[in-house]
Amino acid sequence: MKLEQIPVVAQYQPAPAAMLSGNARVLLCEIAECLQKLLDCGENTTIDLLAMPLNAVDLDWLRERLGQGEVRITLEADGESTLQETNCQGVWWVQHHNPAGGVMSAFIEITPVPDLVRAHKDDMQSGLERLKWLINDLN
Amino acid sequence: MKLEQIPVVAQYQPAPAAMLSGNARVLLCEIAECLQKLLDCGENTTIDLLAMPLNAVDLDWLRERLGQGEVRITLEADGESTLQETNCQGVWWVQHHNPAGGVMSAFIEITPVPDLVRAHKDDMQSGLERLKWLINDLN
Repeated sequence: MKLEQIPVVAQYQPAPAAMLSGNARVLLCEIAECLQKLLDCGENTTIDLLAMPLNAVDLDWLRERLGQGEVRITLEADGESTLQETNCQGVWWVQHHNPAGGVMSAFIEITPVPDLVRAHKDDMQSGLERLKWLINDLN
Repeated sequence: MKLEQIPVVAQYQPAPAAMLSGNARVLLCEIAECLQKLLDCGENTTIDLLAMPLNAVDLDWLRERLGQGEVRITLEADGESTLQETNCQGVWWVQHHNPAGGVMSAFIEITPVPDLVRAHKDDMQSGLERLKWLINDLN
């Protein structure tokens, strides 16, 4: 039999549920508790996904369950950061990449808005200095 | 003389400074005053660009002066909204588009973070309900 005679059929292989460690389910419950805490006390939580005992199938399963919301934030500074709102508002999937595009860190943030997006007072003071410089440059 | 004999030379035409209405310069000063107010009193300002006497050259001039910062936010809901941080932190260029991609509205927002990005309490309550539904669905 020649190589070209062997029939090749591409099949979609769903992630086998058997490979789930069980930790992703536990984490889903923890995210719900954190969101309840945010609603009750205004307390934000950050969960470091790469520091937890989660395998690749767990991460895919979790990401699929949480879904994708309307807001997507990208931040360019020494590699791209993406902050994707999930379909559960108040829960964000945050990833930081190195300049080559590799994932350096991944977090779940439970917050109304990730802190990284907010311009802080020092930043705004620099922004004002820049504006004044632009205005002076016109004269 | 035939049509093909007429020499055609493509030239880059910079936006003529003479077409600037002068209002963009005034607006740049107003933006600086608003940013000072935000730093002093925490007061946010929204400027409706399409409601102001600015022509297309003014808008291009203003956008070029303000520049592009690190953070870009996109929001998908009945057309895309883009919220681009300018190079002057605390100043955002916000545009809402219709589903066909046309610009419906354009604003300068002077704020640490545009309100549209923030998950509000009702949204987070819905997010929590969705999480509880996901968790119940696992059992």
